[in-house]
Amino acid sequence: MASLDSVLACLDLNLDRSVDRLKDLLRIPSISTDPAYAADCRRAAEWLAGDLSAIGFAAEVRDTAGRPMVVAHHDGPEGAPHVLFYGHYDVQPVDPLELWEADPFAPELKTMPDGSQRITGRGSADDKGQLMTFVEACRAFIAETGSLPCRVTIFLEGEEESGSPSLLPFLDANREELTADVALICDTNMWDKDTPAISTGLRGLVGEEVVIHAANQDLHSGYFGGAAANPIRVLSKVLADLHDETGRVTLPGFYDGVDELPDEVKTIWNNLGFDAAAFLGSVGLSVPAGEQGRSVLEQVWARPTAEINGIEGGYTGKGFKTVIASEAKAKVSFRLVFRQDPAKIREAFRQFVRERLPADCTAEFHEHGGSPAIQLPFDSPLLDTARQALSDEWPKPAVMIGMGGSIPVVGEFKRRLGMDSLLIGFGLGDDRIHSPNEKYELSSFRYGQRSWARILHALGTRNAR
Amino acid sequence: MASLDSVLACLDLNLDRSVDRLKDLLRIPSISTDPAYAADCRRAAEWLAGDLSAIGFAAEVRDTAGRPMVVAHHDGPEGAPHVLFYGHYDVQPVDPLELWEADPFAPELKTMPDGSQRITGRGSADDKGQLMTFVEACRAFIAETGSLPCRVTIFLEGEEESGSPSLLPFLDANREELTADVALICDTNMWDKDTPAISTGLRGLVGEEVVIHAANQDLHSGYFGGAAANPIRVLSKVLADLHDETGRVTLPGFYDGVDELPDEVKTIWNNLGFDAAAFLGSVGLSVPAGEQGRSVLEQVWARPTAEINGIEGGYTGKGFKTVIASEAKAKVSFRLVFRQDPAKIREAFRQFVRERLPADCTAEFHEHGGSPAIQLPFDSPLLDTARQALSDEWPKPAVMIGMGGSIPVVGEFKRRLGMDSLLIGFGLGDDRIHSPNEKYELSSFRYGQRSWARILHALGTRNAR
Repeated sequence: MASLDSVLACLDLNLDRSVDRLKDLLRIPSISTDPAYAADCRRAAEWLAGDLSAIGFAAEVRDTAGRPMVVAHHDGPEGAPHVLFYGHYDVQPVDPLELWEADPFAPELKTMPDGSQRITGRGSADDKGQLMTFVEACRAFIAETGSLPCRVTIFLEGEEESGSPSLLPFLDANREELTADVALICDTNMWDKDTPAISTGLRGLVGEEVVIHAANQDLHSGYFGGAAANPIRVLSKVLADLHDETGRVTLPGFYDGVDELPDEVKTIWNNLGFDAAAFLGSVGLSVPAGEQGRSVLEQVWARPTAEINGIEGGYTGKGFKTVIASEAKAKVSFRLVFRQDPAKIREAFRQFVRERLPADCTAEFHEHGGSPAIQLPFDSPLLDTARQALSDEWPKPAVMIGMGGSIPVVGEFKRRLGMDSLLIGFGLGDDRIHSPNEKYELSSFRYGQRSWARILHALGTRNAR
Repeated sequence: MASLDSVLACLDLNLDRSVDRLKDLLRIPSISTDPAYAADCRRAAEWLAGDLSAIGFAAEVRDTAGRPMVVAHHDGPEGAPHVLFYGHYDVQPVDPLELWEADPFAPELKTMPDGSQRITGRGSADDKGQLMTFVEACRAFIAETGSLPCRVTIFLEGEEESGSPSLLPFLDANREELTADVALICDTNMWDKDTPAISTGLRGLVGEEVVIHAANQDLHSGYFGGAAANPIRVLSKVLADLHDETGRVTLPGFYDGVDELPDEVKTIWNNLGFDAAAFLGSVGLSVPAGEQGRSVLEQVWARPTAEINGIEGGYTGKGFKTVIASEAKAKVSFRLVFRQDPAKIREAFRQFVRERLPADCTAEFHEHGGSPAIQLPFDSPLLDTARQALSDEWPKPAVMIGMGGSIPVVGEFKRRLGMDSLLIGFGLGDDRIHSPNEKYELSSFRYGQRSWARILHALGTRNAR
């Protein structure tokens, strides 16, 4: 434990410098979904590879058809396990910009009225702040002990926020290099600010864009209104039909492969002391809007959804324009659970739209990624080890929870590389990821670094036994 | 008739110069709905007042709270009628700009493969080209005879495309000055390129914008999807509910004051030889999408509508963003017929939305203008005079038709000034007004000028009898 103690002390001593490094990374606007920021994505990748090289990793920026990957290797002791750490350096777009209190790419360390401190800016929590907790733990280990307690591969992608189009070819092309004993992923939340969490289930995701076309030009609603098909009306009808009165999704076959939650899991979740009113209240809501007869935790962790993420058609500027648009479009996503099949659900949606097209209307579809849900075994020994290490660091013991979000890479690691993932993150529910004014608590950053030091140490020690 | 013949000859002789003048006016991007073009609107008003002054009118640009008005007066012979000519110098926005073949504000006189010529650009048909037909007729009359056959007031507004917010106060404040024996309005279409038309009925219009609010911030659809209200889904449901399966509008009380068409009018319209397939086919459609059991002419001239003119919410940029938006909005308009009450329909819509709001959702409304429909008497002597004058100019006799569009000023002239309007325009159905690549046929421009010369002459002669 002497080496762990000195590593933890080193982390505490260098906290300010680690914040400065994170701020450097946060200043790079690495928005992956918008091609205008491609060069910034590359800059972020190069910044990370440079930092990892500086602390002793063999680090490279690797080109793909899209944004580049960062792959870095560091040896560990003979017989120690090989862990792959995964994170992503790309970030979400920042619109609506006018709702940000400050430039999203001018990060600050802010002290709040209650004395807590936070790092602000796009990517501070999702995922730059999180991935740097692991990098800082490695830096301190190498500084204090000259090496790492495990063999470590760090694998950072730059398209997580835009459907990871290059991930699968890259995994396939570099299978051997990237396959480790276990993957460590830092892109999730704590249960609360005192209670670390390991996520054992994640919802999958199907992203679709549908464009409804009607007339071959925009029409004047005076001349044509009453006779011409209106694609916004057609689209509204399709989208309104996606749910029934009880909040269930109406796509045929949608619930194929969706299990009811086992009673024992229900009990665990009921004992978490989850405050649904506070969860909804934190964003100005009060009533669960999803499937009737389900708890909020079930709705967001174990039930599938259909959401409209964006819609656009006709005149949306200032004032008014009496136009019948020639097209209308929507971005729609489905969160998947258990064994729902992304391909079948995508096709069911397309068929659902086609069946609702009136005369003269056509539909065009664009695929925006898809991945099945994953569910980790509750009885894994690696899970036990990590849970104990986390419980040693934080005020309360670590809990095992579900996850509403989708991290496609977890399913691909399992399917393509046969590798389980431990999802351990230090985000909080009010971090406003994907929203204006994203932040990461300094406590998440600091104790996250210390947590990884403990986990690396425990994994190394465990195997050395 | 000698004076009329010389005026017509003068118009023919000066056609090229009249096209150049129209092009000068079309180069001014007088988009009234977007405040960024306010100065351009003023430039257009000043250009017109300058041109009218140059030909002998007492012309002024008059300020309003919004875009300015142009008012110009010219005396006529003792005992001749006083006519008020109304047009508008403002134009629609030009988006989507990428669909224009040329700069919307760089007008050209283009010769088509069939030898016909057209004037291109935003406003060429709606309404700058149309209003200049009347100005050119006046110019030629004054040039050839030293005066005009009627007393003429020209009244041009700059907010017709944005709900005419300043029109009512201006009419009320200048009632005496603007009240004439009849209004002449040139903002409508011909029946076809050989057949002039006088519109005797116009639909009214109610413009509304609705914004649905849910959470107090944009949410991540992974964390909140399944539990949080989605305002796009709420909005889609409201909009989908606006029509029933037969295409009827479902707002309670919507059809109050809507008459069935008299049989004699149905007969007239049936005899027009209207080609519904060609009308729809011209814009890439084939099947009337409106109320079942109504002819297309009835649908667009004599039936009310509910149209969604624009919709926007969530992420609509490139790629994908798994967001649940905090708000979604739509611009909705209703075309009114007969005695439908705009205020009642606006309130019925707002009530309809409010009744469909789930918990945690609120609706915000913005009014974008409203006017009732108008229906002119078929037996007016002025109508007969104008009809005969038009029939003398064009290959086929003038017909009396309905109008699907709304020209609110017509109702206000009647209600506030007690003045009937003759709606005579030379636009064609393929002029693409409100759409990319708007144009005005040179034949519309040329024979429109000659038509006004004949009408002014006939109105002056008729009263002199």
